[in-house]
Amino acid sequence: MVSLKELSPELKDIATTDSGSISFKTYLAGDWVSSKELEEVQSPIDLSVYCKVPRLPKEMVDHAIDKVFQTGRWAVRDFPGEKRLEVFHKMAELLNKFRDDLVEVLVIGNGKTRASANGEVNASIERLIRADLDVRKLYGEYVPGDWSSESLEAEAIVRREPLGVVLAITPFNYPLFDVVNKFVYSTVAGNAILIKPAGRTPVPALLFARIAELAGFPKTGLAVLTVPGKEMDAIVSDQRIGVISFTGSTETGERVMRNGGVKQYVMELGGGDSAIVLNDADPVSAGQKLVTSITSYSGQRCDSVKFVFSEPQVYDKLRQVMVEEIKKIKVGDPRDEVNMGPVIEKGAVEELEFAVKDATDKGANVLYGGKRIKDNYVEPTLLEVEKGKVKSLYLYRKEVFLSVAVLTKVESVDEAIELSNGRRYGLDASIFGNDINKIRRAIRLLEVGAVYINDFPRHGIGYFPFGGRKDSGLGREGIGYTIEYVTAYKTVIYNYKGKGIWEYL
Amino acid sequence: MVSLKELSPELKDIATTDSGSISFKTYLAGDWVSSKELEEVQSPIDLSVYCKVPRLPKEMVDHAIDKVFQTGRWAVRDFPGEKRLEVFHKMAELLNKFRDDLVEVLVIGNGKTRASANGEVNASIERLIRADLDVRKLYGEYVPGDWSSESLEAEAIVRREPLGVVLAITPFNYPLFDVVNKFVYSTVAGNAILIKPAGRTPVPALLFARIAELAGFPKTGLAVLTVPGKEMDAIVSDQRIGVISFTGSTETGERVMRNGGVKQYVMELGGGDSAIVLNDADPVSAGQKLVTSITSYSGQRCDSVKFVFSEPQVYDKLRQVMVEEIKKIKVGDPRDEVNMGPVIEKGAVEELEFAVKDATDKGANVLYGGKRIKDNYVEPTLLEVEKGKVKSLYLYRKEVFLSVAVLTKVESVDEAIELSNGRRYGLDASIFGNDINKIRRAIRLLEVGAVYINDFPRHGIGYFPFGGRKDSGLGREGIGYTIEYVTAYKTVIYNYKGKGIWEYL
Amino acid sequence: MVSLKELSPELKDIATTDSGSISFKTYLAGDWVSSKELEEVQSPIDLSVYCKVPRLPKEMVDHAIDKVFQTGRWAVRDFPGEKRLEVFHKMAELLNKFRDDLVEVLVIGNGKTRASANGEVNASIERLIRADLDVRKLYGEYVPGDWSSESLEAEAIVRREPLGVVLAITPFNYPLFDVVNKFVYSTVAGNAILIKPAGRTPVPALLFARIAELAGFPKTGLAVLTVPGKEMDAIVSDQRIGVISFTGSTETGERVMRNGGVKQYVMELGGGDSAIVLNDADPVSAGQKLVTSITSYSGQRCDSVKFVFSEPQVYDKLRQVMVEEIKKIKVGDPRDEVNMGPVIEKGAVEELEFAVKDATDKGANVLYGGKRIKDNYVEPTLLEVEKGKVKSLYLYRKEVFLSVAVLTKVESVDEAIELSNGRRYGLDASIFGNDINKIRRAIRLLEVGAVYINDFPRHGIGYFPFGGRKDSGLGREGIGYTIEYVTAYKTVIYNYKGKGIWEYL
Amino acid sequence: MVSLKELSPELKDIATTDSGSISFKTYLAGDWVSSKELEEVQSPIDLSVYCKVPRLPKEMVDHAIDKVFQTGRWAVRDFPGEKRLEVFHKMAELLNKFRDDLVEVLVIGNGKTRASANGEVNASIERLIRADLDVRKLYGEYVPGDWSSESLEAEAIVRREPLGVVLAITPFNYPLFDVVNKFVYSTVAGNAILIKPAGRTPVPALLFARIAELAGFPKTGLAVLTVPGKEMDAIVSDQRIGVISFTGSTETGERVMRNGGVKQYVMELGGGDSAIVLNDADPVSAGQKLVTSITSYSGQRCDSVKFVFSEPQVYDKLRQVMVEEIKKIKVGDPRDEVNMGPVIEKGAVEELEFAVKDATDKGANVLYGGKRIKDNYVEPTLLEVEKGKVKSLYLYRKEVFLSVAVLTKVESVDEAIELSNGRRYGLDASIFGNDINKIRRAIRLLEVGAVYINDFPRHGIGYFPFGGRKDSGLGREGIGYTIEYVTAYKTVIYNYKGKGIWEYL
Repeated sequence: MVSLKELSPELKDIATTDSGSISFKTYLAGDWVSSKELEEVQSPIDLSVYCKVPRLPKEMVDHAIDKVFQTGRWAVRDFPGEKRLEVFHKMAELLNKFRDDLVEVLVIGNGKTRASANGEVNASIERLIRADLDVRKLYGEYVPGDWSSESLEAEAIVRREPLGVVLAITPFNYPLFDVVNKFVYSTVAGNAILIKPAGRTPVPALLFARIAELAGFPKTGLAVLTVPGKEMDAIVSDQRIGVISFTGSTETGERVMRNGGVKQYVMELGGGDSAIVLNDADPVSAGQKLVTSITSYSGQRCDSVKFVFSEPQVYDKLRQVMVEEIKKIKVGDPRDEVNMGPVIEKGAVEELEFAVKDATDKGANVLYGGKRIKDNYVEPTLLEVEKGKVKSLYLYRKEVFLSVAVLTKVESVDEAIELSNGRRYGLDASIFGNDINKIRRAIRLLEVGAVYINDFPRHGIGYFPFGGRKDSGLGREGIGYTIEYVTAYKTVIYNYKGKGIWEYL
Repeated sequence: MVSLKELSPELKDIATTDSGSISFKTYLAGDWVSSKELEEVQSPIDLSVYCKVPRLPKEMVDHAIDKVFQTGRWAVRDFPGEKRLEVFHKMAELLNKFRDDLVEVLVIGNGKTRASANGEVNASIERLIRADLDVRKLYGEYVPGDWSSESLEAEAIVRREPLGVVLAITPFNYPLFDVVNKFVYSTVAGNAILIKPAGRTPVPALLFARIAELAGFPKTGLAVLTVPGKEMDAIVSDQRIGVISFTGSTETGERVMRNGGVKQYVMELGGGDSAIVLNDADPVSAGQKLVTSITSYSGQRCDSVKFVFSEPQVYDKLRQVMVEEIKKIKVGDPRDEVNMGPVIEKGAVEELEFAVKDATDKGANVLYGGKRIKDNYVEPTLLEVEKGKVKSLYLYRKEVFLSVAVLTKVESVDEAIELSNGRRYGLDASIFGNDINKIRRAIRLLEVGAVYINDFPRHGIGYFPFGGRKDSGLGREGIGYTIEYVTAYKTVIYNYKGKGIWEYL
Repeated sequence: MVSLKELSPELKDIATTDSGSISFKTYLAGDWVSSKELEEVQSPIDLSVYCKVPRLPKEMVDHAIDKVFQTGRWAVRDFPGEKRLEVFHKMAELLNKFRDDLVEVLVIGNGKTRASANGEVNASIERLIRADLDVRKLYGEYVPGDWSSESLEAEAIVRREPLGVVLAITPFNYPLFDVVNKFVYSTVAGNAILIKPAGRTPVPALLFARIAELAGFPKTGLAVLTVPGKEMDAIVSDQRIGVISFTGSTETGERVMRNGGVKQYVMELGGGDSAIVLNDADPVSAGQKLVTSITSYSGQRCDSVKFVFSEPQVYDKLRQVMVEEIKKIKVGDPRDEVNMGPVIEKGAVEELEFAVKDATDKGANVLYGGKRIKDNYVEPTLLEVEKGKVKSLYLYRKEVFLSVAVLTKVESVDEAIELSNGRRYGLDASIFGNDINKIRRAIRLLEVGAVYINDFPRHGIGYFPFGGRKDSGLGREGIGYTIEYVTAYKTVIYNYKGKGIWEYL
Repeated sequence: MVSLKELSPELKDIATTDSGSISFKTYLAGDWVSSKELEEVQSPIDLSVYCKVPRLPKEMVDHAIDKVFQTGRWAVRDFPGEKRLEVFHKMAELLNKFRDDLVEVLVIGNGKTRASANGEVNASIERLIRADLDVRKLYGEYVPGDWSSESLEAEAIVRREPLGVVLAITPFNYPLFDVVNKFVYSTVAGNAILIKPAGRTPVPALLFARIAELAGFPKTGLAVLTVPGKEMDAIVSDQRIGVISFTGSTETGERVMRNGGVKQYVMELGGGDSAIVLNDADPVSAGQKLVTSITSYSGQRCDSVKFVFSEPQVYDKLRQVMVEEIKKIKVGDPRDEVNMGPVIEKGAVEELEFAVKDATDKGANVLYGGKRIKDNYVEPTLLEVEKGKVKSLYLYRKEVFLSVAVLTKVESVDEAIELSNGRRYGLDASIFGNDINKIRRAIRLLEVGAVYINDFPRHGIGYFPFGGRKDSGLGREGIGYTIEYVTAYKTVIYNYKGKGIWEYL
């Protein structure tokens, strides 16, 4: 049975230990609180319970929202921008200071490898520091009036104001980084924030709240709502919430918007990306990068490649490289020297088995993997299928959120584009090759939020903004760009008609 | 019984006349069509039927959406930007050429005065021409990679792409301009457009479609859906539609979003604005402007002033001026020399009568008006109420969409701000006065989309962007700014790692 | 002896005809004036005099500058932006109306072919219309104060204001377009303008002034200074002039800046561009485009290709195509069916003969041309030289402003870059090929103002901005971008410290 | 005789002490060097020599420029942006660590008070940190091609590239901050930099170079040229230098540009600002702020107020307050508790005495001061003069660079504007008052680079950009904005004509 190592003293305060069982408190606008009911949290490593977190009752949630709405949103807004940046720098230092604690929680709680957990901490640190680049979107515009007859002798300032309270609903797979990211873009713009962490991986959000508190972030401007997903319908419809930033499945996202009603939304929904390999691509480099994308964090990433469409000249070599590379992937306990740990739950493995069977029934060829190792450990999977059959696959219609990809030979880049666009998702695509004209054509026609040239899709810290088209979502996460979705324009029109400022001819 | 004069030959084709009864066809992606069932359209002047329009059955709507989705969205996108501007200029010329027809339809169909109808045509013309200024938001950004360690040796282009098909749901009160506005910002950005005109005033949208056709706008890129509002639930949820731009009530807007699900939205919902008059304001100029705002188009404007909060030194004079000015307003048949015509329907008058009674019951003083003249003709109404009672009024809680305003004395600008922010709406506010510091404070604290200094709120052609906070909506309409809501960012990341482009130290 | 056809009536007023000899007046801030001394103007077709223009004495120039400075700069600034755009549209219509007159003057006065003259009129028309896109750079910024501790409770507007009076010194080769271009970007930003046309081709500037007057441009905002170049030293140092926009040789440009002193400058100086042809380029398309660039308007363009550096695999085919294409160029009287007319003066031909001899002396091979046909008519010239000798050529060190280019085989793109960067000029470069990585490397390393991928350099209307590095100049001409150089920022800082607007924590 | 305290060990290395006499070395692209000839440096406190610095011979300068040009400009450019920001943060920490050394040098070398010296260190620290906001201007634009017929099927990236080598010529009055400021905006954009510090106060630049070295700034990217001003003519004309950023007198600035020729320039020249006090201003607050502006650092600031134009209602009270405030200013040894130390040289005092006599001869009234205390110590001076005589004053025509101001009563804001605009300088103006309309009129009409509302002009760290009109200069210094002047646009045009990317209708 896995268990958490003891946390650093400054973090330990937020948990109590009772006969070996750790119970975390949660942070509600300045107070660390627990609740009568507790929720058990499992480690994917061996599916054992390694801690408990509060299961907040309705009244506590309501009270927290009220405090954040009444007090917190002004506390953040009245905290000058330069101090926000200063606090973010302090938080970055604290993340580094508590790196061991955070890595431990990511390994135990998410089944991440140590390297991958460290990567997430690094990304979180860099995201905080690079809030300085978000600021560029917080300048406003001055609009002179004389370019329209109706506004002569008037002028305006158009600028973005915080919407007040952002509700961030974060997914299990990046339980630290995604909290940091949503926190940074919400609060750098002057909003207060409510964080609803994924039920399976709530602990990093709690540690993060502690770090924000230690760094001096306005206390009433942040609350972590540890409530079950099924109780979220009422919360998302709360009128005190101005923005919902959600990362998760398309289905849940739909439900959030239908319940949420008139609010602003950032929706990072289902993905699973296509890659196109052109005749003049380097098959070795492309193949290696693709296998990295397919297997990284067991494919539990929205930007993981699920379909590879290759032009014919490079196809055989590409297949050979991909098979060789995927064979090297070692699956096991993430605390050991492995490349892939467990997946988050057994159900995902069952869906994979179903999808593989569906594919082979329709003529697909298993190039590697496809089988469960035990419980929630599974081999990375590479299938090969003819282009005429791709659209019939379960995998084509539905994102299967683990390490599985389909390799298909196409005659031309246009066929690849057509297959890519045929899916209901439109998150990213990647293109490998050198031909500037073919690449430009694919860029134009792919109906996705981001196209990566000679790289696999990697959202990273959002230095380059990402987000989906079609069923993959709305809005963008990315430095600077998300500011647009967590603020509203305020237009201030100054009318000077008849005051003799301008003496127009 | 009112009736439409004969239309100009080029417009007449879209209607058939049968024993004096005119039936318009509607435009579905290149075809002028009618339907078995027809909808009668009343003139507010005498509530008589002056024409009929198609009531499209589900299959025709579905077929039209499909044509626009499959063909039209590419037809607009493949129509180069410079040609879009050229077509807009031609449309502006045609609007001027057919000015008499359009004014006639606005007078008969909307009960507008001639002056007000001409104003709407002018605004429509200017909006088309000023599409040139929308273009500035269609340039993209180049993002160098070296400001983050994770993106060294990479770079990106981030630009806005059209979302495909915009559904514009337009209100009765500006049946020409609002169609033009939504058409311009949707199509200048490369989207195709479906227009659902208000059931009570569908004709201007049909004439507009004819003008777009005559000017050479891509045929399959536009359809006018003449369907009853109650059939819209299914349409708004259609996945082929990428954006909904809606202007109407808060209640209908909520419904649209809950049905629409994951889409982009521009929502111009309920308003009714507050004005704040400071001690150092000019009461004569302020009073005159406020009465204009209150009575213009019978108060049937979302940016009509409904509450006036005045500081004490200027209060008495302001009240006197407002009463004098409102007395001058002549109500009657809009074809005569009047200032106010009828309101769009009798129900609105009944709501006013209810609201006035509610107010007087609570202690309000009727300074002028408050009574129905006949049918759907009603006096403009000015009430006075103490500050302590304002929040209890029906008028405070609910937008009453005709000419009625409440005047209240406050002790300070802060009291005025508090009363203004207490409403569920947050469209605009206006401030009259000279003191740069008080004005700046009010600008900061008012929770609205736009603040007008020394003018009443007037959205005009959206040269300065407008749109609401809270229950007044999402997104902004305004030259350039709306582009953000009818497009999605596409990020193109070029990875050159290891290619020797940069040789970083 | 060539002579001008009679001008259209509305243009004719600005000239007097005395026994077959036409004398033009010039336009000085509202008045059409002549002067005692006149300057004869030659046609390059047969070097005969076809008209005279005033040679303004110092006092008239001084008086004109004063009127433009005292009155004109305010007249333009007080002419609202939307009216400026309206006047530009009218001017565009008039240019089209007087197209025959303008083409005639460009053929007779510049020796342009009819096609090339029509092209210049078209570009001028489009430049005026696309002033709408310049406007985007005339919006200002709103800078919130709270991102620095020193500016808390303050905020600023930063916007561009016209500098007052622009002196435009235009070259002989685009005597209409360059005047239009400098006029548009100067005046759209609210500046008045003084135009000093090239001494050899002054007439288009005069016709243009007439057109501006007819279209309703503020009279005192424009003057055309027909003075000899050698009298310009005093004028450029005039303190009433805020900006000098100069297009011409590097040597004259240096002199202008040294005399001009503290002013803003847009300097479009010497050029002559390099082209790089990569191994994977299409040699036929590249060769055709290159010969067009080399021979268009007899090479009398700053963006004319003068050096072609080709990678080895494509070299032989490229050479063959270029020789075939250049052979097709027919030289002769531009009123006949030819591709190239005369060059502007005999001196240029002598310089070419010198440069060709210099090159052959050093080992160059004349692939085609190199010889004078008669007077100022000359063959287009293509030389081939080894890479080791390129740098020693006169042509490498000095721009020879007619149709002559050097073809050289290089081993790699890096060699081509090194040879291109070795010149003192840095206007443009072009690259032909498909390899996205090689192209990106060349883009980074080329020290030029603009790089054209798979096209020859063509500044056109400046839709994409152009301008030089190193000895090729300063500033950029291009829609929107030049606004930066003809305006100055005005920062308006509003200090609200202690006024209770913000209540920072 | 004043002397420098011993420096911290890490700084001490750059100086040698020989029998009590300190000689600093200078930093030339990686090497600390001395020279045969040394220049003595005086303290304004008692005019004694407190150290020596190298007087570099021509060859050493040439060699340094070459190293910076050949190696340094690429070293900075190849140092990724995120590392530049990291180094700036380290430098900020070092400035704080060596605060005592820097304050000492500013007190001894400049005669600054301790408070004022600390302020300069703080501003330098903040400037380095806020380089993060400069970055926003280093993003480029993506320009779609389809808004012009000539560029269909093409597109461009337009971005700023470093110009290579910036020569920063810094003034005596902010010998640390101005070096830091010019260093930050030059190098954040990727340029290398040559610093020519003021001859009278060279030491802070040397300490700064040491700090840059310690922080890891690329060694070859920086050199400090300790040469006498009179040897600068040759250096400014050097073609390896791409930009000159100069702060100093108008006369020297003119000379720099005439010698420099075709280069980019940032010229911060003569100033001395006007303040306008409106009838509704608070005279106490205005008077206090104005005296602070007049006396701060003995008026040796380009943004020091030299003229106060007051409307009549507030005039008497304003005069009374200003006299009271100026009387409180204590002049003396800056190491004691004083408000004003010495001025930089005796000559300035003599010019003041001349200017005061000139003013009183013409009818001015000395309200306070006007007299030398001893050597280079002088009283702050306030003169009063009638509006009709202002323009005749020596002080009006010529900036006298110490603490002296003229107070004048005017009838209206327009008179004040006219008097302000009549000077040859146009750096800043300030306006005190509340009336939004009068203030807006003054903002429009004042021909200056910056207008401060209810504050005295204070450039500070350039958070809000500053810079002059007319004889006060060119370009702007300010976070972000200066980037425009130390970079050149590179346009990259991608031509895809005929490649089937777009299929335009």
